Amino acid sequence: MIIDKGLGLGAVSDLLSTAGDYIDFLKLGFGTSALYNQALLEEKISLTKSFGVDIYPGGTFLEIAILQNKLPEYIRMAKHLGFTAIEVSDGTINMSSEVRVRAISAAADLGLKVFTEVGKKSSTDKLPIRLYLKQIQQDLDHGACKVIVEGRESGKNAGFYDSEGKFIRDEMEALLGAVDCGRLIWEAPLKDQQQELILRFGPNINLGNIPPFEALALEALRVGLRGDTLCSVYKGEKQQLER
Amino acid sequence: MIIDKGLGLGAVSDLLSTAGDYIDFLKLGFGTSALYNQALLEEKISLTKSFGVDIYPGGTFLEIAILQNKLPEYIRMAKHLGFTAIEVSDGTINMSSEVRVRAISAAADLGLKVFTEVGKKSSTDKLPIRLYLKQIQQDLDHGACKVIVEGRESGKNAGFYDSEGKFIRDEMEALLGAVDCGRLIWEAPLKDQQQELILRFGPNINLGNIPPFEALALEALRVGLRGDTLCSVYKGEKQQLER
Amino acid sequence: MIIDKGLGLGAVSDLLSTAGDYIDFLKLGFGTSALYNQALLEEKISLTKSFGVDIYPGGTFLEIAILQNKLPEYIRMAKHLGFTAIEVSDGTINMSSEVRVRAISAAADLGLKVFTEVGKKSSTDKLPIRLYLKQIQQDLDHGACKVIVEGRESGKNAGFYDSEGKFIRDEMEALLGAVDCGRLIWEAPLKDQQQELILRFGPNINLGNIPPFEALALEALRVGLRGDTLCSVYKGEKQQLER
Repeated sequence: MIIDKGLGLGAVSDLLSTAGDYIDFLKLGFGTSALYNQALLEEKISLTKSFGVDIYPGGTFLEIAILQNKLPEYIRMAKHLGFTAIEVSDGTINMSSEVRVRAISAAADLGLKVFTEVGKKSSTDKLPIRLYLKQIQQDLDHGACKVIVEGRESGKNAGFYDSEGKFIRDEMEALLGAVDCGRLIWEAPLKDQQQELILRFGPNINLGNIPPFEALALEALRVGLRGDTLCSVYKGEKQQLER
Repeated sequence: MIIDKGLGLGAVSDLLSTAGDYIDFLKLGFGTSALYNQALLEEKISLTKSFGVDIYPGGTFLEIAILQNKLPEYIRMAKHLGFTAIEVSDGTINMSSEVRVRAISAAADLGLKVFTEVGKKSSTDKLPIRLYLKQIQQDLDHGACKVIVEGRESGKNAGFYDSEGKFIRDEMEALLGAVDCGRLIWEAPLKDQQQELILRFGPNINLGNIPPFEALALEALRVGLRGDTLCSVYKGEKQQLER
Repeated sequence: MIIDKGLGLGAVSDLLSTAGDYIDFLKLGFGTSALYNQALLEEKISLTKSFGVDIYPGGTFLEIAILQNKLPEYIRMAKHLGFTAIEVSDGTINMSSEVRVRAISAAADLGLKVFTEVGKKSSTDKLPIRLYLKQIQQDLDHGACKVIVEGRESGKNAGFYDSEGKFIRDEMEALLGAVDCGRLIWEAPLKDQQQELILRFGPNINLGNIPPFEALALEALRVGLRGDTLCSVYKGEKQQLER
């Protein structure tokens, strides 16, 4: 999942022609979707979909819709504009469990893929890990297709990252012990984070908030075409061949 | 004000089609203007102007013209190439008050908008704040339309930023107590700097040295479409509605 | 030498139209070359060459070919695709002197320019400096046209940089005392590194792993069109004029 902070049509076309095979989702970060000229936005959505890539507005936008008591209008507008998915998050606001379930269902009913997000944007708002685990299970039960683990654009001081962007180890382990990794998308904007997740979970781990210009470099990292993972991938292959 | 370190025509077109409504000025950073093929430069200037955006060469270029005793030639050339504005700065060199006034007047006489800049590129060259205040007043009196507060491309260790990019608090306050904020453009390349200035002065504060790919994300930050400012903007709106 | 981590055709065209005069080599970083659609890769190679710029795949790719015992196939494929140069490095793997010489010769025999690289990607793998000096001399003797000094994409904790990206001073001096600087390309992705090398060796020092969007800004730094080098370049010119 790529975070798009305002790519023009030329840059989207460049990105998807070059690395589209390795990208599943394009997220128009934050509430930037609201700042586009509507014709341009529709063209961008349509261009992205023509490469077989899902596109959706950032979770902050939905949080604002909820604050403004416009959730149904927001979801219908997203569908109308051509977005193929939606993110339900409460990274900044507090959202009742009931509203969260309603958002998931309403979007799923319109045929949108639903991603929910767990983790707070600020480390001071953090909840105990068991509440996140409960949340994840509940979201999946209600129709979310994947749950995003918050990491922000910066990869620091948010979700399960400390102020230097390192994993908060025991929380990460608790998460992993309880959830099927394939149902998670880890926001991992920094290379060290990507590398650690790949080395631990293998090349197919879902990663998010990837800067556009890192898409191909990340794929290289996944498949051992970059120094940092070359040896471990090669060793793994060799062991498989020898079996 | 966007800092452009060498965008091609495709990227300029992408940027301005997407975020042009939120951009006032494009600065061709440093002396890079001198490194373009002239036909390309003229095309780039003309393309930028077609979006209603001002374009001007970085202040370092004028400093060199002064060192080489070519100020009038420099200003005429800028006008001839189609630039709509000019920056008068002494971030690196020392410039007499008389030369500064002459540069402002000469550019204004040719119909160019004039931005002056205060603050040194190196923290060791710093002047007492009262001299900057005097400078700002003098520049505005002589025809500068806005005064840029130095922050460099890095946002660190220059102007009123310390080595970590944090505001030097008492200098900032002194500046603010004495000058109409609308006449300043704050170079604020880092997100935390942008956020602090927006939360303090509201969404219309003039910001500069914004990296091109941050233009739309910054607008989202201004209007509360990003987690970091969402709550404070929403709280402000609510208070207004309740009044 | 620019490091290209996956630029699309539009971005390559933008880059080379704008800054092509200041670029000698485009490196498709890591093993990303393997991730392109082949038709697109050939078009990109051909586009780059049309600007008179050499293009070659990152050294990691060759290391993998060696691990897989496919060196001749790799070199022939590179030639076949239109690459004009090749990098022979052992930043991650260990390579015998014999294999290294064979790689250099095989590529040179096919008419490819050969760049070799010295320095390890990890600071824990470092060799004594005298071994690097021996390596450099041997590579040049066997037909390498230039030797790249490892700096990675990050410029930190690799080659002759410490964990903060500062030069390891005594190693740098030893290198400089023994090798003709014109035969080296310094990977120097960070501005402070570029600046230090330029101020020490003059504007023509070969620099590598330059991010695409820094190409024009780096040229400005070289020729004194940027605050950081303006004064020293101007002082030098003045001294020359006065002689």
